[in-house]
Amino acid sequence: MEPQEKTSHERAVLSLNSRFYQAFATRDFELMDEIWGPSEPIACIHPGWTTLLGRNEVMASWKGILSNTKAPSIKCLSPKVHLLGPMAFVTCIELIGELALTATNVFRLEEGTWYLVHHHASPLPSYAKVVPDASKSSDPDGTKMVH
Amino acid sequence: MEPQEKTSHERAVLSLNSRFYQAFATRDFELMDEIWGPSEPIACIHPGWTTLLGRNEVMASWKGILSNTKAPSIKCLSPKVHLLGPMAFVTCIELIGELALTATNVFRLEEGTWYLVHHHASPLPSYAKVVPDASKSSDPDGTKMVH
Repeated sequence: MEPQEKTSHERAVLSLNSRFYQAFATRDFELMDEIWGPSEPIACIHPGWTTLLGRNEVMASWKGILSNTKAPSIKCLSPKVHLLGPMAFVTCIELIGELALTATNVFRLEEGTWYLVHHHASPLPSYAKVVPDASKSSDPDGTKMVH
Repeated sequence: MEPQEKTSHERAVLSLNSRFYQAFATRDFELMDEIWGPSEPIACIHPGWTTLLGRNEVMASWKGILSNTKAPSIKCLSPKVHLLGPMAFVTCIELIGELALTATNVFRLEEGTWYLVHHHASPLPSYAKVVPDASKSSDPDGTKMVH
């Protein structure tokens, strides 16, 4: 449970975040297309990819990803919304099959409607499969030392 | 070269993004502390870690990271600023020693001053060491298939 009641904007952003994962999980490209903002800037960092910039490039990537009929199940866990006026970001855990990832999703309020404008997902160490709400990794790959 | 001239806010955000990497590279905790916003929300996702939430937890992580005197050199390449009113996000490549990472840095305008409020860095495949501005990975670890 959250310590404070959510504002209507926070609820709207969390709802849109859920719809993003619904579109992802059901491979619904039309819904995915509605969720992303109609205007630039639009950006996306898929796990292990460098940044995709611009709506056309980002949506083309989703078209490819959602056309993969062998994709495993997708769930969003522990979403936390951080509201900053007409923008917000959500941090959450993604469970994709047996992989755990961490994600940042950036949203923008445009003429009264919230849209997704940036998604960045990256892998978590394997132990996070079992303990997705752990506060940090045990640094199995040594990245903690440099960063 | 960028196709359009930058606005003063875009220049201010890029300058702050540079100072963030300067603080990181020179292990200057005081500068790092100035760069991060004075008020919540503050969040940070170090490579392979789950999300750190709140200023205290985030700054404690930087205190630990910057105290590592064996840390390799750090450079920021190809920063791109995306302005959304009183918020902005920068996407860029980080070169840490011989590792290449991709980063999202979220900034907020607070009483006329820009601050960093969220940092998410994640590893790129090894080929990105050589071609940091490539548009995407060749998916050596198969994550592209699921995401």
